[in-house]
Amino acid sequence: MTAEQVKVVFTPSGRRGSFDVGTPLLEAARLLGVDIDSVCGGRGLCGRCQVTCTEGSFPKHEIVSQAEHLSAFTQVEKRYGERKKPLQDSRRLSCHTRLLGDVVIDVPPESQVHRQVVRKDAEHRDIRLDPTIHMYHVQVEEADMHDPRGDFERLLEALEREWQLTGLGCDPLLLPTLQPLLRKGNWSVTVAVYRGEQIMALWPGFHDQAYGVAIDVGSTTVAAHLCDLVSGEVLASGSLMNPQIRFGEDLMSRVSYVMMHPGKEQEMTQVIRQALNQLIAQVSSDIAASTDDVLEIAIVANPIMHHLLLGISPVELGGAPFALATDAALNLLARDLDLVMHPGGRVYMLPCIAGHVGADTAGVILSEEPQLQDEMTLLVDVGTNAEIVLGNSNRLLACSSPTGPAFEGAQISCGQRAAAGAIERVRIDAQTLEPRFKVIGCELWSDDPEFAEQSGQIGITGICGSGIIEVVAEMFLAGIISADGVVDGSLRNRSTRIIENDRTWSYVLHQGESEISVSQNDIRQIQLAKAALYAGIKLLMDKIETQSIQRIRLAGAFGSQIDVKHAMVLGLIPDCALNQVSSAGNAAGTGARIALLNRESRGVIEAVVGDIEKIETAVEAKFQQYFIEAMAFPHKSDPFPNLYAEVAPPAQKQAQPNAGSSRRRRRRSQAGSGAD
Amino acid sequence: MTAEQVKVVFTPSGRRGSFDVGTPLLEAARLLGVDIDSVCGGRGLCGRCQVTCTEGSFPKHEIVSQAEHLSAFTQVEKRYGERKKPLQDSRRLSCHTRLLGDVVIDVPPESQVHRQVVRKDAEHRDIRLDPTIHMYHVQVEEADMHDPRGDFERLLEALEREWQLTGLGCDPLLLPTLQPLLRKGNWSVTVAVYRGEQIMALWPGFHDQAYGVAIDVGSTTVAAHLCDLVSGEVLASGSLMNPQIRFGEDLMSRVSYVMMHPGKEQEMTQVIRQALNQLIAQVSSDIAASTDDVLEIAIVANPIMHHLLLGISPVELGGAPFALATDAALNLLARDLDLVMHPGGRVYMLPCIAGHVGADTAGVILSEEPQLQDEMTLLVDVGTNAEIVLGNSNRLLACSSPTGPAFEGAQISCGQRAAAGAIERVRIDAQTLEPRFKVIGCELWSDDPEFAEQSGQIGITGICGSGIIEVVAEMFLAGIISADGVVDGSLRNRSTRIIENDRTWSYVLHQGESEISVSQNDIRQIQLAKAALYAGIKLLMDKIETQSIQRIRLAGAFGSQIDVKHAMVLGLIPDCALNQVSSAGNAAGTGARIALLNRESRGVIEAVVGDIEKIETAVEAKFQQYFIEAMAFPHKSDPFPNLYAEVAPPAQKQAQPNAGSSRRRRRRSQAGSGAD
Repeated sequence: MTAEQVKVVFTPSGRRGSFDVGTPLLEAARLLGVDIDSVCGGRGLCGRCQVTCTEGSFPKHEIVSQAEHLSAFTQVEKRYGERKKPLQDSRRLSCHTRLLGDVVIDVPPESQVHRQVVRKDAEHRDIRLDPTIHMYHVQVEEADMHDPRGDFERLLEALEREWQLTGLGCDPLLLPTLQPLLRKGNWSVTVAVYRGEQIMALWPGFHDQAYGVAIDVGSTTVAAHLCDLVSGEVLASGSLMNPQIRFGEDLMSRVSYVMMHPGKEQEMTQVIRQALNQLIAQVSSDIAASTDDVLEIAIVANPIMHHLLLGISPVELGGAPFALATDAALNLLARDLDLVMHPGGRVYMLPCIAGHVGADTAGVILSEEPQLQDEMTLLVDVGTNAEIVLGNSNRLLACSSPTGPAFEGAQISCGQRAAAGAIERVRIDAQTLEPRFKVIGCELWSDDPEFAEQSGQIGITGICGSGIIEVVAEMFLAGIISADGVVDGSLRNRSTRIIENDRTWSYVLHQGESEISVSQNDIRQIQLAKAALYAGIKLLMDKIETQSIQRIRLAGAFGSQIDVKHAMVLGLIPDCALNQVSSAGNAAGTGARIALLNRESRGVIEAVVGDIEKIETAVEAKFQQYFIEAMAFPHKSDPFPNLYAEVAPPAQKQAQPNAGSSRRRRRRSQAGSGAD
Repeated sequence: MTAEQVKVVFTPSGRRGSFDVGTPLLEAARLLGVDIDSVCGGRGLCGRCQVTCTEGSFPKHEIVSQAEHLSAFTQVEKRYGERKKPLQDSRRLSCHTRLLGDVVIDVPPESQVHRQVVRKDAEHRDIRLDPTIHMYHVQVEEADMHDPRGDFERLLEALEREWQLTGLGCDPLLLPTLQPLLRKGNWSVTVAVYRGEQIMALWPGFHDQAYGVAIDVGSTTVAAHLCDLVSGEVLASGSLMNPQIRFGEDLMSRVSYVMMHPGKEQEMTQVIRQALNQLIAQVSSDIAASTDDVLEIAIVANPIMHHLLLGISPVELGGAPFALATDAALNLLARDLDLVMHPGGRVYMLPCIAGHVGADTAGVILSEEPQLQDEMTLLVDVGTNAEIVLGNSNRLLACSSPTGPAFEGAQISCGQRAAAGAIERVRIDAQTLEPRFKVIGCELWSDDPEFAEQSGQIGITGICGSGIIEVVAEMFLAGIISADGVVDGSLRNRSTRIIENDRTWSYVLHQGESEISVSQNDIRQIQLAKAALYAGIKLLMDKIETQSIQRIRLAGAFGSQIDVKHAMVLGLIPDCALNQVSSAGNAAGTGARIALLNRESRGVIEAVVGDIEKIETAVEAKFQQYFIEAMAFPHKSDPFPNLYAEVAPPAQKQAQPNAGSSRRRRRRSQAGSGAD
């Protein structure tokens, strides 16, 4: 065999080689280890192996590349174009294109197996597509009396012959469907293989619909993104209210409900699973897909939702020592959770970190990757409990802190959920003490002449979490409240907005059908919540021995709505360059999506979570002290140089010249006692 | 530490060593690698580590062994005796007995982990107990706020610390029970670990009930043996009729039923699973155990029952090419088969061999071990299809042959199932042509004066399978039928039992309320059945190139009821020394029991089945020729020297002086043509 040899160079990989004239491009690519996709195994069905010939002279490679150096456009390619969509821009199916002369062949990103899935957030690296489930189309040998193997064994043989897959098991529930499907597909079938180990789904003929859903089970909202497991694209998104709200607004009230009604956890499990099923059906229906084509879901959830979803009673999480049933990542069968998707469907649940630091925080870490950062990074996810992660590539620490539901508008006299009519933005004039504000559902500020008319339809109904942060911060900056959080009643002489209220003072934000005001007690609730959060952060800073934080990312809905400057004015978070504080968006959900699309990431997050140092604030002696110091706005003793470089200090700001040095003294004395 | 050292020798292992005074015996045994059982981890709960001190002088070991060289009987041992049963024969719990001086310690068989389970059949080796599921009792560290691990992770830590088990997974269905059980057991629990890999069951405190059930799913009968997974003993046995009989008496009629009523296979699956559940409940209830304590079942079944049990339609097995859905051994979750046992229960199904050679035959092989024999061994399991295995340690071959249901009494004019009133034994006087017989349910032969009275209550209702074999063989030996199977009508002159019947002749066996006779057509049915069996065997002998068989084992109910001499007279089986032909009893069921109790045996049978050469009789050109030659009694041309050494040839036996040499000629000519 001395067939004529021709040269081929593949871009962008740069891999090159010489092959016999007539070699199919896909075969040449495989022999050179070029990353090129195929589901149908070179049958011209899937269209995933498209390439382009780059024409021109390439002296470096001694190649003059021309489209004519490839075999003529085939009937198979024409049929593919008719069946799916015509090949664009002189694309070819590499499985049906043969080498006739020297060429440079470009493999576009969408034809690569491990293509990058673009994340919208510019700050992050793209996700490398490498799902746990891969699709393979094979032609199985027909059953034959001369060869008494079982049909499943013939399928295994085909998968080994065509795809070099060995040692595969099979979901036993598929066995009853195997023989009819093989015959229906005329012995051609597509299988989905889970983790390279087990056949988990089966279709007659060629099939390339394979979807996954990333789900973030929050205490208030359950959100889902349906992703194409072959392209990595998000094809549909949806969310719904967590139906468990009827058992309690916040997580702790749901746990109390179970404590008072033993056995009710089963009903709570049932309703959350139903909600997931509704959501899976909804996002599938959005793209006119069958839930049978949903092969895997990846789930993040806080520990209580995590446990309830698994059918585990959350009562142990409701009291000390707050023991999780398990903190491990879980690989489950969807049917064991009564989830309606492909009957062999799989579920991946990210690991929990500790009793109040859940798989949602694991998702935030997977998305934000603090373990890869040089900068000391703080991740905060605020809910009924704040989940706090601090660290960098050297160490990561995590804890939770019992902020309570004040930041969500609960326990605030005029607080409400973030919905149309809720005040979400506030500014107070330090001279006149007059406020202006914005409500959800109206673009105008309240001092705009057209505001009354435009907001009239939606009304002004209360203050949501981000509004509370702003109004209290603005009250502090305007001198209405002191650093200790006391409303200054003497200001009633300057403004009618300062009114007496059961021996304390309130600030009236709006006088309409009903009065919307901020009471002394509201301020106290915010103080308690923010002190808990700050004390948790401080404890971690202490443990990791850092005085400053370079980067703060606020996760979750709350984090994306609050104004970071106002949050820092109140001392929810420590001082930090303001341009280094930002919202991480729905980082937990993004983490679920990463885990869904990239199998390696699961090992990464499991290892990172294993290495995290878990701090239980309840057993830390210093927590109480840090809590008390953090009651002041922004803090009793910690300086906020970055903040006050950009924000004018409040009119009545109390000087704290020695704060920094007293703190250093305390640290020294600790070091001394440690050496005793 | 220079504590005084004392010597200990363990028997029967002979392992010995020196230890510090005060060392617990169990610890010494473990350090020496002595095979000694424990479920409770040395807590004096399980009583499995019992040993005896052998007193006396052992010069060889330089030991004078005395019971006083062991620490005094403890309260723990006393309490064990009160709770379970008192320690017998100066037994001690080795976990609570310390070395004080030199001793010889005997570990009785029941205290060894890998004890031998005695098989009643003297011909077989004992089963080495080594189940896939082991029980471990552990003390788990209490949940503690200073250590934020999940409770499952604490359990894993305890299993590693106390039992050196690592890398364990957990059945996700256990997770909801973990926390309540840990607390109920005051942080002491017993776990069952499957294959050293996965925690599959969990109980609070100490628990040592762990059962397995070996099940043989026959087409007529489903039989079960409940075994103690810790001792290996069979504690209860039971059987019931296969409820699928209502869809068809024999397997092929059930397949036809599914072919004619598509979808009905689901109902058939349901009823057989219900039957298994009924049987599991029955054998559990026999020992007052909960089905929750049944942790594993091992199943053998013919291919059609195997498929139906798995929910696989058997239609492909009903026609060429007789393709199995799978021939692999299967490890399943009981819940995937709707079986009611422990919720995490496991099912092992032995592998099938070929389209008509099922997991039941795999069970027979596991029990009979032909792959370990030097002698050329024939295993035959007769049903609607005969399953045939031939070979020895060099090679094993298997095939099935379509005998039809004649051997089961079907398609025989007076045939019936083996039940009270059925004729099962027959002798015919060659001079008078008068028969005598026995019926099931009566101990007497029919020529006994008291027979009429004793058999009167049960009646004489028909002829069962073994009766048919005997009566036809006796008719042949008495000269009533020729070697070609023709009833000799001329004998009507000698006996009134020869009667005309639609232009052929019948032999009247009994004239009572109804006439019980053997017709010419009955003889033809038996000829067809036995010719199919013989031809299948002959084909395997051909393939394996042997002229003779050293050993024949007849498996199944039929095999245990028929008289081997009569079977050979008819030529059901080839010539063989009669004392080397025997029943294998319920070898398939024994195979299931071996697979249940010894995990290694599963790998053995899977490998043996993989190596078996599967012969499909339907595609073998010679099968038809062999079939025709085997229509004669005992055979047209094959000599039966062993048989005729013990049995007088029939009165009208046709001489076949050249049979042997003509056969040799044919073989030579074949060899010649093969070399062309």
